[in-house]
Amino acid sequence: MRGKIALEEAFALPRFAEKQRWWAGLFALDPDKHVAEINDITEQRIKYMDEHDVGYTLLSYTAPGVQDIWDPKEAQALTVEINDYIEGAIKGKEDRLGALATLSMHSPAEAAAELRRCVAKGFKGALVNDTQRAGPEGDDMIFYDGPEWDEFWGTVASLEVPFYLHPRNPTGSIHEKLWAKRSWLIGPPLSFAQGVSLHVLGMVTNGVFDRHPTLQVIIGHLGEHIPFDLWRINHWFEDIKKPLGLSCKKTIREYFAQNIWITTSGHFSTPTLHYCMTELSADRILFSIDYPFENFKDGCEWFDNMEINDTDRRKIGRDNAKALFKLGKFKDSEA
Amino acid sequence: MRGKIALEEAFALPRFAEKQRWWAGLFALDPDKHVAEINDITEQRIKYMDEHDVGYTLLSYTAPGVQDIWDPKEAQALTVEINDYIEGAIKGKEDRLGALATLSMHSPAEAAAELRRCVAKGFKGALVNDTQRAGPEGDDMIFYDGPEWDEFWGTVASLEVPFYLHPRNPTGSIHEKLWAKRSWLIGPPLSFAQGVSLHVLGMVTNGVFDRHPTLQVIIGHLGEHIPFDLWRINHWFEDIKKPLGLSCKKTIREYFAQNIWITTSGHFSTPTLHYCMTELSADRILFSIDYPFENFKDGCEWFDNMEINDTDRRKIGRDNAKALFKLGKFKDSEA
Amino acid sequence: MRGKIALEEAFALPRFAEKQRWWAGLFALDPDKHVAEINDITEQRIKYMDEHDVGYTLLSYTAPGVQDIWDPKEAQALTVEINDYIEGAIKGKEDRLGALATLSMHSPAEAAAELRRCVAKGFKGALVNDTQRAGPEGDDMIFYDGPEWDEFWGTVASLEVPFYLHPRNPTGSIHEKLWAKRSWLIGPPLSFAQGVSLHVLGMVTNGVFDRHPTLQVIIGHLGEHIPFDLWRINHWFEDIKKPLGLSCKKTIREYFAQNIWITTSGHFSTPTLHYCMTELSADRILFSIDYPFENFKDGCEWFDNMEINDTDRRKIGRDNAKALFKLGKFKDSEA
Amino acid sequence: MRGKIALEEAFALPRFAEKQRWWAGLFALDPDKHVAEINDITEQRIKYMDEHDVGYTLLSYTAPGVQDIWDPKEAQALTVEINDYIEGAIKGKEDRLGALATLSMHSPAEAAAELRRCVAKGFKGALVNDTQRAGPEGDDMIFYDGPEWDEFWGTVASLEVPFYLHPRNPTGSIHEKLWAKRSWLIGPPLSFAQGVSLHVLGMVTNGVFDRHPTLQVIIGHLGEHIPFDLWRINHWFEDIKKPLGLSCKKTIREYFAQNIWITTSGHFSTPTLHYCMTELSADRILFSIDYPFENFKDGCEWFDNMEINDTDRRKIGRDNAKALFKLGKFKDSEA
Repeated sequence: MRGKIALEEAFALPRFAEKQRWWAGLFALDPDKHVAEINDITEQRIKYMDEHDVGYTLLSYTAPGVQDIWDPKEAQALTVEINDYIEGAIKGKEDRLGALATLSMHSPAEAAAELRRCVAKGFKGALVNDTQRAGPEGDDMIFYDGPEWDEFWGTVASLEVPFYLHPRNPTGSIHEKLWAKRSWLIGPPLSFAQGVSLHVLGMVTNGVFDRHPTLQVIIGHLGEHIPFDLWRINHWFEDIKKPLGLSCKKTIREYFAQNIWITTSGHFSTPTLHYCMTELSADRILFSIDYPFENFKDGCEWFDNMEINDTDRRKIGRDNAKALFKLGKFKDSEA
Repeated sequence: MRGKIALEEAFALPRFAEKQRWWAGLFALDPDKHVAEINDITEQRIKYMDEHDVGYTLLSYTAPGVQDIWDPKEAQALTVEINDYIEGAIKGKEDRLGALATLSMHSPAEAAAELRRCVAKGFKGALVNDTQRAGPEGDDMIFYDGPEWDEFWGTVASLEVPFYLHPRNPTGSIHEKLWAKRSWLIGPPLSFAQGVSLHVLGMVTNGVFDRHPTLQVIIGHLGEHIPFDLWRINHWFEDIKKPLGLSCKKTIREYFAQNIWITTSGHFSTPTLHYCMTELSADRILFSIDYPFENFKDGCEWFDNMEINDTDRRKIGRDNAKALFKLGKFKDSEA
Repeated sequence: MRGKIALEEAFALPRFAEKQRWWAGLFALDPDKHVAEINDITEQRIKYMDEHDVGYTLLSYTAPGVQDIWDPKEAQALTVEINDYIEGAIKGKEDRLGALATLSMHSPAEAAAELRRCVAKGFKGALVNDTQRAGPEGDDMIFYDGPEWDEFWGTVASLEVPFYLHPRNPTGSIHEKLWAKRSWLIGPPLSFAQGVSLHVLGMVTNGVFDRHPTLQVIIGHLGEHIPFDLWRINHWFEDIKKPLGLSCKKTIREYFAQNIWITTSGHFSTPTLHYCMTELSADRILFSIDYPFENFKDGCEWFDNMEINDTDRRKIGRDNAKALFKLGKFKDSEA
Repeated sequence: MRGKIALEEAFALPRFAEKQRWWAGLFALDPDKHVAEINDITEQRIKYMDEHDVGYTLLSYTAPGVQDIWDPKEAQALTVEINDYIEGAIKGKEDRLGALATLSMHSPAEAAAELRRCVAKGFKGALVNDTQRAGPEGDDMIFYDGPEWDEFWGTVASLEVPFYLHPRNPTGSIHEKLWAKRSWLIGPPLSFAQGVSLHVLGMVTNGVFDRHPTLQVIIGHLGEHIPFDLWRINHWFEDIKKPLGLSCKKTIREYFAQNIWITTSGHFSTPTLHYCMTELSADRILFSIDYPFENFKDGCEWFDNMEINDTDRRKIGRDNAKALFKLGKFKDSEA
């Protein structure tokens, strides 16, 4: 379909090209191509968009990003650099490209302030790569599901912009205990979903969405496994955990209907999408690719040709995101 | 339907009743009822079976079980006690009840020997509760996906009995880092599936099924999230990880078609079951309840009334398990 | 769910009670109960609505109705009587009940005029029982898919009210040739769907929706089989019939997205509904019961408990119909 | 997948090539190509089979075939000619091609005798094109659902071969009344399914399968709409029609589980196939193309690539048909 919106799409800072080349060796068959693609903002990317009928892309800084930096000052400095860089890089292409703010998550107040600064300049929301690495050795993980983060979530909600909770690789002692000997499962095959699903369900059970009922959080990869278990989670929350003291106000299905969105990034499976439509409604699903970790051709040809009705295809492919991010005109935005 | 087989069904040792009562407070609304039900073998259980048309039940020792005992000798002694106990407890009721062996997993040779002893006495396979707790403080986790376990898996395969990989709660430093502040997610809502999916996919990527191609492993709860991501796992394994060095011989879909079974235990959702039938085939799915953590009424009324054709209902409800466990006659075994 | 809208719900004229009692013997186990229910407008019906959370009902004259009367004058006289009757019968209950106009379909002009008269008085649309019986012996069938009906369809479209194409039993020589020796298939098991699907697809292929692109037609019973064959119809229309001369402008899927609605009347099957959601979108599906041919309990308990997400349940159960019929406030209309 | 079996695949008699060319103008964009393909038995057809991994094809005489000939003697003579012709034409290619007998259906005894003759010579079953045209003007239709056909059905059952009930176009007064003014709906878009579904459900309600409980009947095009309405048919048969006198012994779902098979011929839709798998089980579905009315590429590429598990793909693509028709070795029959 024409005029699709894609929103889990990565960029990097060109000055880190060498480091990216090394890192790309872990997940890319052609690291040079990967580095070229992730550092390009307006050339190859827009060619792909034109070729595959993507009207508008929301860019975000690649994982692990700032969440991998355990020194708070260094993290904050890099955050500002990244946000200023992408603001400049898309200048003049705002009819095709937008950006999600990068945030250092060492301090709720600092993260809130940076988000405020970015949204004032036209950023459409924020994307954070799971827990913030912290501690003297980088072995701690900061989750954002405790009450100390209310200041931050209140800001996100009051700015009326969505927050994308993106995965990050396991690090530190967790990496050693669980993942080191089964390293082929790190990333898309398993660890990504395990990290994000724990984090977002932590937000649910620790009451973040109760205290910020208009907060909108997006998770990728068709929901990081959670839709598969909605029945089981709902059953245990409602029938057992709440009688035993779990205090969140709504059902897990209500949070997914009112606060949580999922995207198709990196999960181009029609049966899984159909299943998610049954469990969540096409009204809460957003198209995305995950470029350049995935390619435009795989994501877009699948989406354009998969067997669903065109009413829902249009909602997932464009109209839901257009409303959620309050987007104006872009290429084929009315197609 | 009449003559159903259920196979993730727990029992406990009566001498631990007090400990169970304390522990049941974490997940049961009526701990006394839970303790009574889990310690009963042939009275209330068979009444429920009759009431809900379950013809045959395979019993296994409740989680965390022996996997929670980090002293190898203590673990092995308890294992033998449990197996001898259940063998005696079902005597005379073999037309309704069978057992899966409990195993201490500190030593591959010891586990293999105990399985051999049990199968010789009529046990139908084994059930193990995820990783074995180990180390001086119980903070280590033994996974069974390394080459040192080939001796064990070779025994399982040569005995031609299935191995059920059941969840266990997170313990030690993993518990502190990830779960302690989001404790409502421990167990069925999230941690169970995360543990088992890492373990069974570790077996896949570390080549266990390549070295033991006839090995049959069962996982519960409709597959502990993995069916949701089969497309994504397959894509990353085949298109990226194998070119980069992942060496397992078959595709993830082939392992699920040839080596892995899923059960309905604790996941009584028709859309999820339909989705799993699409991804895995009704030929690889087995009915189960997860009694007494779940109840017969919920599991059986759902299964008997859910909207699928009766051909597949019969396969999932009885015929697949009858063939897999090579069961003889039991109540309504031909119904 | 509370505040459901039901819209294929029948009433009869009390002066025909004897005839109805005879006729009810063909499809009702308790003809007396059926006659009482179909003649009641505001007592038992509203009790059922309250009991089963139906907020609003749209009433229509029972099949075969005026379409069974082959004398044009007699048909028109009865039409007016029916419309005046129901207008009076629901007076004072407009917060719970509305009506669809009954039309004699012997003359496009006359039908258009009667619809205009009714809509002016508050009727929400029209419901017609398939082809109009005609000819000296009643053996002819008037279809409304030829150009001579443009006057009528233009009126429907300009009034911006939906038209419900409801089934009628086969009559005359068609009955003799096809149905007499397999009479158990007359009605819901087969003949209803065959009649309506031929008629509505005749409207498609004969260009009715091209000449009246805003026309909204509703068909019951989850689409009278057509959703099952959308792929096949689309393939033959687009790939073969259009190159050979079929001249309709849009694809069959576009007519179903822009002009045609389906209801759940008498088809309380979750897998079939899920399939229709995939093929047509929840945005084009409307809850209905088909009372008193079906009962409130079967239809409403199924709908309230079936396994779909609540976002789509609300659209199908109320919100789609509320927008389509431009309804104001009724009981639980905002629930 | 390799080694697929296709079984609704048409041939014609070369001496009718001119007539076919005229007729092909109604449904083929290139009538010459159609005539060449339908008259070819072992050249182009086997090239297509090789190219698209079809290991074995069952051939049947094209519709409307002998069912269009209302003179019984002429019909019988042509039947014998067709059967003798195809027997000769596939000689020496029995590892790739088999045949379904053509039958004149004017007389149950004659049809039974011809089937017996054909099966003795290696035919794998019979295929008949819906009702037999009959009467002095060809305006009568012989259905095979009355008790006078028990002799025939008894023969089919005792020979243990399947019977394929294939569509035929509407003729005579039915054509005039229903189809002439909506002729774009004749054939695959609608009339085919309406004819066969009436006929096969007539067999159900008139007790044919009760009197011949081992009879196996195949219908094409994913079941000619009936799977869509299984819930509704079952509800009306069990809850209303049987209490009112419908006397068939089993439920409609049981007939579909024990007596009726469906094929994918001409209906290459993954959502519809998934739905049929839910309602009927993959165990009752058979791959087919409908060549040369459909082409190998469309049918095979869809089937080989559509998103279902490979266990069910193999059953539908080959193994179900191999067992049903008791086929021996053919190309890739063990692949």
